[in-house]
Amino acid sequence: MRTSIATVCLSGTLEEKMRACADAGFDGVEIFEPDLLVSPSSPEQIRALAESLGLTLDLYQPFRDFEGVDGPLLDANLERARAKFELMNRLGIGTMLLCSNVGTATIDDDAVAAEHLRLLGGLAAGYGVKVAYEALAWGRYVNDFEHAQRIVDLADHPQIGTCLDSFHILSRGWDPAAIEKIPAEKIFFVQLADAPELSLDVLSWSRHYRVFPGEGAFDLVRFMAHLVRSGYDGPVSLEIFNDVFRQTAEDRTAVDAMRSLIWLEERTASYLGQHDGGTQYPMSLATLPGVAEPTGFNFAEVKAGNPDAVSELLYQLGFTFAGRHRSKPVQLWTSGTARVIINGQQAGGMEPGISALGLDVQDPLAAASRAVQLRASPVPRRSQADEQVLQAVFAPDSTEVFLCEATADGTAAWADEFGPAETGGAQTGGQPAQPLISAIDHINLSQPWQHFDEAVLFYESTLSLTPIASQEVPSPMGLVRSQVMRSADGGVRLALNIAPLIVESGPGGAEYPQHVAFTSTDLIATARSAAERGLRFLPVPANYYEDLAARFRLDPEFLAELQELNLLYDRDGDGAFLHFYTGTVGNVFFEVVERRGGYEGYGAPNAPVRLASQYLASRGEPNRKDG
Amino acid sequence: MRTSIATVCLSGTLEEKMRACADAGFDGVEIFEPDLLVSPSSPEQIRALAESLGLTLDLYQPFRDFEGVDGPLLDANLERARAKFELMNRLGIGTMLLCSNVGTATIDDDAVAAEHLRLLGGLAAGYGVKVAYEALAWGRYVNDFEHAQRIVDLADHPQIGTCLDSFHILSRGWDPAAIEKIPAEKIFFVQLADAPELSLDVLSWSRHYRVFPGEGAFDLVRFMAHLVRSGYDGPVSLEIFNDVFRQTAEDRTAVDAMRSLIWLEERTASYLGQHDGGTQYPMSLATLPGVAEPTGFNFAEVKAGNPDAVSELLYQLGFTFAGRHRSKPVQLWTSGTARVIINGQQAGGMEPGISALGLDVQDPLAAASRAVQLRASPVPRRSQADEQVLQAVFAPDSTEVFLCEATADGTAAWADEFGPAETGGAQTGGQPAQPLISAIDHINLSQPWQHFDEAVLFYESTLSLTPIASQEVPSPMGLVRSQVMRSADGGVRLALNIAPLIVESGPGGAEYPQHVAFTSTDLIATARSAAERGLRFLPVPANYYEDLAARFRLDPEFLAELQELNLLYDRDGDGAFLHFYTGTVGNVFFEVVERRGGYEGYGAPNAPVRLASQYLASRGEPNRKDG
Repeated sequence: MRTSIATVCLSGTLEEKMRACADAGFDGVEIFEPDLLVSPSSPEQIRALAESLGLTLDLYQPFRDFEGVDGPLLDANLERARAKFELMNRLGIGTMLLCSNVGTATIDDDAVAAEHLRLLGGLAAGYGVKVAYEALAWGRYVNDFEHAQRIVDLADHPQIGTCLDSFHILSRGWDPAAIEKIPAEKIFFVQLADAPELSLDVLSWSRHYRVFPGEGAFDLVRFMAHLVRSGYDGPVSLEIFNDVFRQTAEDRTAVDAMRSLIWLEERTASYLGQHDGGTQYPMSLATLPGVAEPTGFNFAEVKAGNPDAVSELLYQLGFTFAGRHRSKPVQLWTSGTARVIINGQQAGGMEPGISALGLDVQDPLAAASRAVQLRASPVPRRSQADEQVLQAVFAPDSTEVFLCEATADGTAAWADEFGPAETGGAQTGGQPAQPLISAIDHINLSQPWQHFDEAVLFYESTLSLTPIASQEVPSPMGLVRSQVMRSADGGVRLALNIAPLIVESGPGGAEYPQHVAFTSTDLIATARSAAERGLRFLPVPANYYEDLAARFRLDPEFLAELQELNLLYDRDGDGAFLHFYTGTVGNVFFEVVERRGGYEGYGAPNAPVRLASQYLASRGEPNRKDG
Repeated sequence: MRTSIATVCLSGTLEEKMRACADAGFDGVEIFEPDLLVSPSSPEQIRALAESLGLTLDLYQPFRDFEGVDGPLLDANLERARAKFELMNRLGIGTMLLCSNVGTATIDDDAVAAEHLRLLGGLAAGYGVKVAYEALAWGRYVNDFEHAQRIVDLADHPQIGTCLDSFHILSRGWDPAAIEKIPAEKIFFVQLADAPELSLDVLSWSRHYRVFPGEGAFDLVRFMAHLVRSGYDGPVSLEIFNDVFRQTAEDRTAVDAMRSLIWLEERTASYLGQHDGGTQYPMSLATLPGVAEPTGFNFAEVKAGNPDAVSELLYQLGFTFAGRHRSKPVQLWTSGTARVIINGQQAGGMEPGISALGLDVQDPLAAASRAVQLRASPVPRRSQADEQVLQAVFAPDSTEVFLCEATADGTAAWADEFGPAETGGAQTGGQPAQPLISAIDHINLSQPWQHFDEAVLFYESTLSLTPIASQEVPSPMGLVRSQVMRSADGGVRLALNIAPLIVESGPGGAEYPQHVAFTSTDLIATARSAAERGLRFLPVPANYYEDLAARFRLDPEFLAELQELNLLYDRDGDGAFLHFYTGTVGNVFFEVVERRGGYEGYGAPNAPVRLASQYLASRGEPNRKDG
């Protein structure tokens, strides 16, 4: 599939945008005229730049409101078109986009519109360029791609064809199956956009909220399948008007864009394989190494200038010190299959924070290859000759994601690299033979707001995790959006949070803390043991327990135990959830959870309590426990 | 009028919110239950805090989904209510809000709903509290305030009354005139919210986009007039769910909120004075000193560690050095009635930037008093014994707004304080007898995004400027929103810009530059003269002029002159607009404009060219002029 992208998707100058698209691997770009108008580069310089970057210039979008107007205005429009065709010749662009008239059309007559397009086609022929006519969703008389196609058919001119835009088709609910009825040679161009479900007027929706395929709610796989079946083999171009993409670094937006297209190709190929058997079509579609869902967490890694505060928390939670790495200042702590690495290879002052996570996968090499083909950046290998070679890529927030070989017994092959515990100096007090904490339940990562869609697409496309409906949680600093990504069996659960921008009153520039949640088979026993070992729990206000009593009919003794131990509680139709949080160390804290029955949530009703308590702690205010 | 505000409007902890509301002058607050639940303060401590702050606790919002349910659920709901009534007794709150059922109602029968409310009223009586029933716009069976009132009438219980919320009434298009039919003693509470026009589902609109009165599109003056006529004299409370307010400093949000209520009181009093003559109502409404629109700009002030770069630009534009202040390192430059003060009382390294503007008003003392009563902060007086006493307040972005006495001849009384020009050392080369630049046309100020609504309300309420429809302009760093505020005759025009958040690729932390635009009687002559004096114009790319030729049929010589001088051009049905920009010095630049015919705009189609050219300049890239 020939991939292309409109320059309006990205921030920066036209030249910066073109470089970013070339670097991300796009075949071509469409030039949005305003980007050229504000550029100090001449059309010839832009053409030369594209050639040097190996990009084709696929489409030019110079003007609107052409057809269905009266005589004098038509003449003026043809004059405008002549100037733009000359410019396109200088740029070396062969196709112009023409959107259906939204502003100046006064004649609602397909024959008249077709006649005007035929005149334009005649003019275009003189310059050797083609015109792709597109039905805008809010076009005055033409807002349906089949209607636009009827006008193209009536115009019956070799220079006049159609442009299909998935936004304009799917936002209006038109059936994309009709794409197959259009002769492939009449489809001059295809633009793709996804968009979230929004009950917003279609113009605002289109201008501000489009997203890359896979980041919204449109069924673009079916759209693409119809397009492939039509016989079309031209560029498939992303035209995404998005306020956030316009202001974030163009190089990573371009990578996000390219990832979305590659993934769409794979899913389209899979769909066609299921539905159309071995039928061959002109358009070739990229394929990727298929991988199964990850089966569990292999480990979590915390980096810290000084590991002591983190190792103390783990000790208090009942983890066992399993040794130091034989050649690096790295500790391994375990409890059941929960493994936490504390990586001390950092500058002394570095605050502890989650730096990496390991996932159990069936075929690490295939999984890593898939991720890299989806434009993930590999983590440079740091292993030495006698160490396990681990596959890893960077997630969009720079967390390192290691792809580890799943073992039947839940052990980790690399754990051999850690020496016996007795050689270390960390706390090693006796731990229970049968640890209460058995595994990592979930990991919670804060995401910068401007890269949230990119993160969801990354985990979905590279690691086959599925996004669950997102939630918004109030905090003293604003609403926090939480998006869980998980594997079908719940073996891997990631919670991605977008924290609000702290503008004025918040902790000065501090990162939002991230955390690892562990599963306990007996939360109350875990909490009691941790309390005995001196764990500093995140305090829970008394008002919370009064409300809990009003909401659920809990046994008073049980309620008193929850309050005594700072435990939080939730219940739904499937089961119950008990959990507690440790205090925060640097940018990391831990949670321990016990899932009872079929409870599948994360205690969302309790999240405001946690956020408020952490807010108080971050400001150094006392958490008064009674009054 | 008794003013109140819901704690959900503000960021921070409950205690921080209450302090901010008291400081802003609110009489009371309504407590949103989640704020209490996450607080370490006991109900008794919150009650004591309110007393010490002089705040009444007007309303508690503990739960939803009460009425219209079957027997077992009703029993559980009454139990919940009992717990909350006990809590309200501890808090000392006399009124509970009850929203119409959205989730659990299964019985669509007013008689049943009324019976349930009567039961609740009986329970409430035992605790001496009242229940205010409110129709949510998306209530399952009850979403219209008149419907809610019919149920209240049917319930016929002294503890059961109604709560009116302007959002739920006006968002659905219900006629607020029916408020007058409700007996005043049955209106237990009133919540006010404004909102922008949005074609969004009403739930999202309500939960995220409410704004303070005067910041949206609702006709709240008429709403208030109906309320006053009903005889109601209880609290009028702001309940604003707004994502931005939730994350900005609570003290300034509370001031913004209080300003909106005071201004609403004034406008309501004025409306009633016009429509109801001398009728007296129970509710008293605050009044403010009335002021006429400002008639023009008195001056603009630029602060700079080193004034030389700014004075050079003004000299090149044809300004006359009119002297130094007799006691401060401050220069005055004039051209016609355009006065620019360069204030050098700054640390040496301070980049030049716009720090103050002066407006001509009829009665400076009254205008300043009005602004201060609207909670604007006065600028501390810096005048000495022999200096003019100038009235000034801070705008939300910290710009100082001076309120100066308008004179018939356009002179400024304070200008006497500046010594003769010959005592200064600045450039004073001969200037034309009749300066081409005659006045300040407009001033463009960048606003932080989170305080934009506050800024518009500030200029509208304190200075009687009117907002014009806003525009969005693309730039290499994202969309820039531009909002013009002006006086009716155009004597004062302020353009407020919200610049996009520069996240990664933009100039590191630099402020967006602001500018002063001057009116010229002959732009081409001004530009030629400035070029002769060595002015560094903001360069305009050649592509722009090619497009200008395609859009407008301009005389080729005229077009060549525009291009030679880096002039921009726009035209509409009323006239034409010529303008140019200087290079940027620190955070300030200048524009010169010539308005031909009745052109009233600001050259918005040219703004992307300016923004892109400034972006290139800020990155130190060459503005290649040809290719």
